[in-house]
Amino acid sequence: MTANPVLLDGKATARVVREELARRVAELRARGVRPCLRILQVGGDPASSIYVASKTRASVRLGIDARVQHLPESAGFTAIDAVVRSWNDDSSVHGFIVQLPLPTGIDTPAVLRLVNSDKDVDGLSPASLGKLATGRPGFMPATPSGIIELLLRNGITIPGRRVVIVGRGELVGRPLASMLLLRGERGDATVTVCHSHTKDLGAVCRTAEILVAAAGHAGLVTGGMVGEGAVVVDAGTNSVEGRLVGDVDFQSVAPRASAITPVPGGVGPMTVAMLLANTVRAAELASGLAGHD
Amino acid sequence: MTANPVLLDGKATARVVREELARRVAELRARGVRPCLRILQVGGDPASSIYVASKTRASVRLGIDARVQHLPESAGFTAIDAVVRSWNDDSSVHGFIVQLPLPTGIDTPAVLRLVNSDKDVDGLSPASLGKLATGRPGFMPATPSGIIELLLRNGITIPGRRVVIVGRGELVGRPLASMLLLRGERGDATVTVCHSHTKDLGAVCRTAEILVAAAGHAGLVTGGMVGEGAVVVDAGTNSVEGRLVGDVDFQSVAPRASAITPVPGGVGPMTVAMLLANTVRAAELASGLAGHD
Repeated sequence: MTANPVLLDGKATARVVREELARRVAELRARGVRPCLRILQVGGDPASSIYVASKTRASVRLGIDARVQHLPESAGFTAIDAVVRSWNDDSSVHGFIVQLPLPTGIDTPAVLRLVNSDKDVDGLSPASLGKLATGRPGFMPATPSGIIELLLRNGITIPGRRVVIVGRGELVGRPLASMLLLRGERGDATVTVCHSHTKDLGAVCRTAEILVAAAGHAGLVTGGMVGEGAVVVDAGTNSVEGRLVGDVDFQSVAPRASAITPVPGGVGPMTVAMLLANTVRAAELASGLAGHD
Repeated sequence: MTANPVLLDGKATARVVREELARRVAELRARGVRPCLRILQVGGDPASSIYVASKTRASVRLGIDARVQHLPESAGFTAIDAVVRSWNDDSSVHGFIVQLPLPTGIDTPAVLRLVNSDKDVDGLSPASLGKLATGRPGFMPATPSGIIELLLRNGITIPGRRVVIVGRGELVGRPLASMLLLRGERGDATVTVCHSHTKDLGAVCRTAEILVAAAGHAGLVTGGMVGEGAVVVDAGTNSVEGRLVGDVDFQSVAPRASAITPVPGGVGPMTVAMLLANTVRAAELASGLAGHD
């Protein structure tokens, strides 16, 4: 029984990441470059508005020129297309995000296909995901990047570890699996992906040295599903009675884990920090201050 | 002890696939459309020459207009680029392949980025892999498609099964993992990917109900690594003393397996059949005889 697991403090870790980024922004600004981020929000989905505000605020605090462009819920593909193309073509825009979800009726994959992968700081365009699939990634999605960064910066090694991911969504589960299979200290893991069709989910989860819950199902992972001493990462963002609740039942899981993320304050802050990191990198690449890997 | 495993006969299964495709080609030709495949081979790598000849022969037998364009080993990126663009732009070409590997010094990902995903019958361009990563695949790579087709047509169900893939290459392991995580009867599997950094590979492999070896390492998978009654698929194509040898040690594994692919005559023939299937589908899509999914 590991009575006191290490708390993987995303807020504190994200602060360290932001401090490092602030130095890189200062370096850019000393050379006359101000990182520039644009966010397109279509319609007024309340959760999206909160995320957009949070991304903008964190960016501005870091010295990034971050602005939101709003389009009405009724905006069609053509209007969205026009904004995306204008940002693709505007060399003063280093990176941009199309905030998801888009209104019903908009062909989201078609919109994401428009995004220039050099500016795709969300890492969710097919071009970026295709680069990842070929093992030569460009910008990588923020949430899985944040999970990996959180582990590394808290001294948890990834290569050779058995990682079980619960959830196969396009935002977290699938890209995280791809990333953990890349070569190097951020990858080289043995990766299993589980989902709603997995039989005896508990048995599979118990084999994990690192267990990542990203199913979008409040409290899905309970103590009996976690092996003694596992590292548990909760990427769930479920709203239960107006509260943010993860996929992990913290109370029953924590006593078995060697380390665990809280919700809130775990993966969430890291997600925003990784978006900032992608934006700063986009500005560095565009201004010749960083080489492509 | 399963003394007599079912032999997953890729040759026979591929024949059935080709017979079905022949009917679709006849239908196309009745409407004045002859499926058209082009293959670009740069240099004279002997293994590539054998593969190219085999693809061309199988295509021509099916009534596909298949031709190879050769470029010398010394051809640079510009020459390759010109051929790819000409095929992208030529509406009479339904699908084409850039035979890999390209000569050293050629930026292969940059070449594959040029391929129009509507004609990417090899399914290996970042655009095609990006579509797969977003869960809305276009053309899918031939070898993993062939593995899935071979299983389904031999009565082996995939949803809910524990699949372990040994190997994380871009041609087989990675895309197969993505495909087996898609929804539907060809996916919905619980998927684990192992590789050279996996600890206790045998223990992980023994958890598999379906074990796929795609590591490129002759005889890597031995009997002790296979659970009683597992289905074993050998996608290895190793050349040992001039003979084609798989990744599975057939002699020790077969007695433990409920079903197993031979090498040769297992995955190999299915790979070619799936390339034909992609080409026929490309012709159907281009001529309005099939709807996009």
